[in-house]
Amino acid sequence: MPEGDRMHALVRRLYPLCRSITGDGVRETLAIVGEQLDLTVHEVPTGTQVLDWTVPQEWNIRDAHISRDGERIVDFQALNLHVVGYSVPVHRTMTLDELRGHLHTLPDQPSLVPYRTSYYAPTWGFCLAQATLDAMPDGDYEVVIDSDLADGSLTYAEHVVPGQVDDEVIVSCHVCHPSLANDNMAGVAVAVELAKSLRNPYYTYRFIFAPGTIGAITWLARNDAARVRHGLVLACAGDRGSLTYKQSRRGDAEIDRVLAHVLRDRPHEIREFSPYGYDERQYCSPGYNLGVGSLTRTPYAGYPEYHTSGDDPDFVTPESMVDTLTVCREAVDVLERNRRYVNMSPYGEPQLGRRGLYESLGGRSDAKDAQLAMLWVLNLSDGDHDLLTIADRARLPFQAVAAAADALAAAGLLKVG
Amino acid sequence: MPEGDRMHALVRRLYPLCRSITGDGVRETLAIVGEQLDLTVHEVPTGTQVLDWTVPQEWNIRDAHISRDGERIVDFQALNLHVVGYSVPVHRTMTLDELRGHLHTLPDQPSLVPYRTSYYAPTWGFCLAQATLDAMPDGDYEVVIDSDLADGSLTYAEHVVPGQVDDEVIVSCHVCHPSLANDNMAGVAVAVELAKSLRNPYYTYRFIFAPGTIGAITWLARNDAARVRHGLVLACAGDRGSLTYKQSRRGDAEIDRVLAHVLRDRPHEIREFSPYGYDERQYCSPGYNLGVGSLTRTPYAGYPEYHTSGDDPDFVTPESMVDTLTVCREAVDVLERNRRYVNMSPYGEPQLGRRGLYESLGGRSDAKDAQLAMLWVLNLSDGDHDLLTIADRARLPFQAVAAAADALAAAGLLKVG
Amino acid sequence: MPEGDRMHALVRRLYPLCRSITGDGVRETLAIVGEQLDLTVHEVPTGTQVLDWTVPQEWNIRDAHISRDGERIVDFQALNLHVVGYSVPVHRTMTLDELRGHLHTLPDQPSLVPYRTSYYAPTWGFCLAQATLDAMPDGDYEVVIDSDLADGSLTYAEHVVPGQVDDEVIVSCHVCHPSLANDNMAGVAVAVELAKSLRNPYYTYRFIFAPGTIGAITWLARNDAARVRHGLVLACAGDRGSLTYKQSRRGDAEIDRVLAHVLRDRPHEIREFSPYGYDERQYCSPGYNLGVGSLTRTPYAGYPEYHTSGDDPDFVTPESMVDTLTVCREAVDVLERNRRYVNMSPYGEPQLGRRGLYESLGGRSDAKDAQLAMLWVLNLSDGDHDLLTIADRARLPFQAVAAAADALAAAGLLKVG
Repeated sequence: MPEGDRMHALVRRLYPLCRSITGDGVRETLAIVGEQLDLTVHEVPTGTQVLDWTVPQEWNIRDAHISRDGERIVDFQALNLHVVGYSVPVHRTMTLDELRGHLHTLPDQPSLVPYRTSYYAPTWGFCLAQATLDAMPDGDYEVVIDSDLADGSLTYAEHVVPGQVDDEVIVSCHVCHPSLANDNMAGVAVAVELAKSLRNPYYTYRFIFAPGTIGAITWLARNDAARVRHGLVLACAGDRGSLTYKQSRRGDAEIDRVLAHVLRDRPHEIREFSPYGYDERQYCSPGYNLGVGSLTRTPYAGYPEYHTSGDDPDFVTPESMVDTLTVCREAVDVLERNRRYVNMSPYGEPQLGRRGLYESLGGRSDAKDAQLAMLWVLNLSDGDHDLLTIADRARLPFQAVAAAADALAAAGLLKVG
Repeated sequence: MPEGDRMHALVRRLYPLCRSITGDGVRETLAIVGEQLDLTVHEVPTGTQVLDWTVPQEWNIRDAHISRDGERIVDFQALNLHVVGYSVPVHRTMTLDELRGHLHTLPDQPSLVPYRTSYYAPTWGFCLAQATLDAMPDGDYEVVIDSDLADGSLTYAEHVVPGQVDDEVIVSCHVCHPSLANDNMAGVAVAVELAKSLRNPYYTYRFIFAPGTIGAITWLARNDAARVRHGLVLACAGDRGSLTYKQSRRGDAEIDRVLAHVLRDRPHEIREFSPYGYDERQYCSPGYNLGVGSLTRTPYAGYPEYHTSGDDPDFVTPESMVDTLTVCREAVDVLERNRRYVNMSPYGEPQLGRRGLYESLGGRSDAKDAQLAMLWVLNLSDGDHDLLTIADRARLPFQAVAAAADALAAAGLLKVG
Repeated sequence: MPEGDRMHALVRRLYPLCRSITGDGVRETLAIVGEQLDLTVHEVPTGTQVLDWTVPQEWNIRDAHISRDGERIVDFQALNLHVVGYSVPVHRTMTLDELRGHLHTLPDQPSLVPYRTSYYAPTWGFCLAQATLDAMPDGDYEVVIDSDLADGSLTYAEHVVPGQVDDEVIVSCHVCHPSLANDNMAGVAVAVELAKSLRNPYYTYRFIFAPGTIGAITWLARNDAARVRHGLVLACAGDRGSLTYKQSRRGDAEIDRVLAHVLRDRPHEIREFSPYGYDERQYCSPGYNLGVGSLTRTPYAGYPEYHTSGDDPDFVTPESMVDTLTVCREAVDVLERNRRYVNMSPYGEPQLGRRGLYESLGGRSDAKDAQLAMLWVLNLSDGDHDLLTIADRARLPFQAVAAAADALAAAGLLKVG
């Protein structure tokens, strides 16, 4: 199956599961991902202190509905977005007026069901289309949420591809959203394919599949962030929009420059860091300030279907996920080869011709990229400029500059600085 | 009386007085200002060395005219601009040709009388409309200037509003121009209202009413400029043009950032420092290099009525002075609350929800300014960024950011850095 | 003879000589330049190690042709570009097919003869118009190159104008191209006139006439580059295009700021440094990183006639060379007078009026450049800003600022910082 179709199939398979920040929906999601990647699954008990937070009780839900005369008008079995995440159990008969305070709709998008949660304030609620609500007559309704909140654990998983060095690149995806396809099963699907294609990399690559906010915080609380050299938060990876890269808090981290380079010749947008969005919020909190950016297509809250039932598997396309994946791979290629070299023959140009590195016929004005790349690498390899900076400055493809560095290093003219 | 009318009334009352860099015109001006503000008036004797300068002799004038056949053709009593400031006494009969070398006109603005001075070279002269000159027949004229130059003193005044700290904000207005309304009785009127509205501020505010150049130099010679943290030179505060802020010599002083923020959403112009204009020239001389900018409406020499009889009370409006005053007050509000904080919980985001600082219903995409402001303050409060920088970076109003900081500090999540 | 005509006459006289990186063509060129400038000619023996390179064997050529039936079809005597530089001797009869691998043409510019060299790979070849080749019938051709490659020396020359200080400004021209007028006999001609007009300068000026690449490398190997404070590589100085300045590798060297200032009000282009072009490649190699930029009209490889027989004396004009020379002289004027001063009276403005430096009549709004220049120099002379920075900041001509500094220094208000 082509890669795009494979990713789309995974999105469709994961889509119906009722995920939240804890519970069996996350476990089932990770089990399916685990069919393709070797995962280490972590269970962190309720009550565990993680940084400023505490792991909450685990939430599971079996059924929920609003019924009238025995007919389910709002039905969790049809769409799990209908229940506010972390709703406490309820089984009552109520009038529509009593019920209204527990109903969430989108008046401006009357046919769509919103996604709502209440993780840390005990309450219950239903999400439904405004059109559905408008059609509900006054009278009594049976209201059922068959859920439970109990001590248990928070679940997250890691897949590690060992590298030549312990310095890590992390790729982080949130897995806490129920039936929302672009946000974030598309990100999970792209991460899975990216992970599968890594072969003996230079850096160690760590893929983190964790619930948003509390999951990233739990991971940070239990790991040494100092080994994280670069990272990407992957989300909204499959819609039809063009790519958006949101810079790390540093703004000039290597990952920021890498993505700018890789996206240079594609339609794209680069945004400055803001402390609102996905788990880059945690990785880029001031105490960590990691070189972690966020790659999306249409960004956080940027499309009308965002956090609604409109974000279904038809909202994401195989082609878009392949495009996101391609950019991730190109970014990895640059990260892997980017180094800072020192020119060992910095006084004047070394004589490249006698080393077979320069064409012998002089006078031509159409110098090849390969020769220009060698001259740029020699000129700027003073310990201050890495290859990516040189490629940007020279307006040459990174791979041409990296190949030039390899040739010059093989000739003894460069060493790693 | 509304504020605007009160300021305009003050301009009209001060306008007729014959001010110069010394003399009774300044004293009368300060006496009128002193009806509204508690002023300390300083008299610095002629001959006092002030920095590189010496306080000159005091100049006073009772009358002056050019008459023909007993009729006053140019009459100081009608408009004090008619006499060149610091003119030595004269009483002669002269032909028009002899007189011409002492006459100043504006050939391109034939109906306006220019403003001219000669403080440091002893001479005399008259300023008149070109049209008046053109109508003067050849023949003999009686020329009278009943002035005197004698040892006396230079007069300036201060009004101080004590703050919680000794660090000072200065507001400096020149009071040496005779009948010119925008330049600078409007600046004086705005400063008076600003001073009256300050209540128990953080900084100590010092309002300086002094003659231009020599007055500012005298003040600098007699005070410790090191306590001046911020300052504004107020001039041309009442014409119908939009606001202009001229940066301090530093260009990135806090006052420069404050004014850029306050003016952001108004029609305005920001100019780089130049060593030409008002008393910012002295405060920003390289030995002091204070964080003092200059706020005007249409800037120095930027309007045709500048330094002419066209700058009369009708040239300034209550509305314009109110607008200038409003911006001054907003700038003061920012200065007063701008601080550098440190996030006490910098690893990951602190859990705002359990502190009642974050709304409990998740999933919505329309985060409120108040919540965004808290996230920005937490993320950037690393000791490097003050609240104003955070507000600019977050594109949020300063007051929203300051309120967020107050809430976070109250919750123990921030402390002053 | 006017300067422009004199330069053009020199170009025409030097044009026919068969220069290369070594050999008698360079010696003859330097002998003619030596008629106008006092030159020190250096001969560096074959085999001498110069940085990473070795001085090659010397190449001389007496005759060359491709003939058929005794008729010269390609004739070195008619145009020395016809022979690939450093061609080894050959005397054979060959078919056209055998010959083709040794022939160089420009299919897209069929009437022009290209310029080609093979300094470091022993081979031979002819350059000819595509039209000539197209007209050559199959059959046998006599092929003669009467050249020799033998131990000898590399020749370059220097002309030095001693200055008040040992710090040097270098002006470097390559003299290795055979019959190409703009590239670089025009550069040589401009350098000669510039050198002749220098009188008792502040800096020591060193004019270097050397073969490209190996010549500059030889000069660098034999001299102390640390004394080079500023420099210009002069090339393509006579075509009809506007001026192009290519920055030094530093990008903000004083020479870079000087040329930006001098070119400000002319049609021009400023390019960032790149490690491809003329001998700035060597002077700006990372070990030296000298403040040396490159001044051309249409830059390196930027015109269709570049490195072809189209670059003949008609391609350069007296007017263009005069324009290049004028800019060089203006740049020298700025370099010579640019200093960093310290204001000796930095607290407030010094009283310029009593020193006769400020006009006594106050109130006018049309301050003169000379007065503005004094205020700017006083305000910014804090040891951080040189006069050129002040002129750029004040948007005043450099000479006005330098004159102000002279006046202030004469009054004891400034000293060299």
